[in-house]
Amino acid sequence: METLNIRKQFANFPMPTVVVGTEEMGQINWMTVAWCMQLEYNPPMIGIVLSKNHHTSKAIRNTGWFSVNLPTIRQMESTDYVGMVSGKEKDKSKVFPSFYGDKKKVPMIEGCGIAFECALSETIEINGDPLFIGRVEGMYSDPEYLTDGKPDFAKIHPFVFCMADGSYWSLEKRVAKAWKVGESLRT
Amino acid sequence: METLNIRKQFANFPMPTVVVGTEEMGQINWMTVAWCMQLEYNPPMIGIVLSKNHHTSKAIRNTGWFSVNLPTIRQMESTDYVGMVSGKEKDKSKVFPSFYGDKKKVPMIEGCGIAFECALSETIEINGDPLFIGRVEGMYSDPEYLTDGKPDFAKIHPFVFCMADGSYWSLEKRVAKAWKVGESLRT
Repeated sequence: METLNIRKQFANFPMPTVVVGTEEMGQINWMTVAWCMQLEYNPPMIGIVLSKNHHTSKAIRNTGWFSVNLPTIRQMESTDYVGMVSGKEKDKSKVFPSFYGDKKKVPMIEGCGIAFECALSETIEINGDPLFIGRVEGMYSDPEYLTDGKPDFAKIHPFVFCMADGSYWSLEKRVAKAWKVGESLRT
Repeated sequence: METLNIRKQFANFPMPTVVVGTEEMGQINWMTVAWCMQLEYNPPMIGIVLSKNHHTSKAIRNTGWFSVNLPTIRQMESTDYVGMVSGKEKDKSKVFPSFYGDKKKVPMIEGCGIAFECALSETIEINGDPLFIGRVEGMYSDPEYLTDGKPDFAKIHPFVFCMADGSYWSLEKRVAKAWKVGESLRT
């Protein structure tokens, strides 16, 4: 194996592409995030890492709510755009159509693959920047994306972000079942 | 949008599929992890969430080192297998060929897409389970996966995990450049 230069060749695993929604003082804002992870099943929790200076960070701190929206590939342009422009400079509220869930606390994206309504549970500082931990209080999807009542990635067509080439990649093919394809190696 | 039952229909964004490597008292172990995220650029940091009872959690706590290995789709069976069987019960050391980096502290997977040699920087408890934060001290790849010296996902063929259907999905196509495809919406 060849040693890579961490500074010059820093690459990483494929990361989810999601849009984080906030609303502060009536102002809706959207921001693209790739540093996003599931943290717990029960209660269901999601973590996102932002820069402390992001407009979205301020809104999450002040309101205690954020949404995590998994866009479909048809929303790729809008998803990219809200990651390029700051809410401090531009009103991005109309880039996506929004809806509210049961809690009526935070906007989510109408027509996205899956929308997670999150209450801020804890904020952890990592090298000075916030890891916002949200408890999932509501989950929504469009009926057209469901199969047997469950979100179906073959219908959602999400896309992932790869830092090595600064590109979005599509998920095309379900290649194998997890906890199954490795059975052949069991001794 | 339709309200989903969080308990019954819990689905999430696509997650990276990585293999975490450890070595404790001379015993190499591998474990599949999907709850994995980049946390910082400078210094480069990666976070992984495990159950506190995992054999790997114990090894990370005791040694202060772990590796994060991005497998290629050709290593899918082995990757799945090391997520099905505990190191408490089976010796999984030979499931992957291993190599060591400059630090000589933790094994990595020979032939994987990208291997990250991580020194444990901090452990944060989330609902009782550990989020291990590792500082990337070394990064390695196979020359066959590089283009202009950088890891090329088109050559690595990583795969991602989707919880909704408990399946691995392949990354097939670079669909657009980030920070570019959204330019058309700039006003």
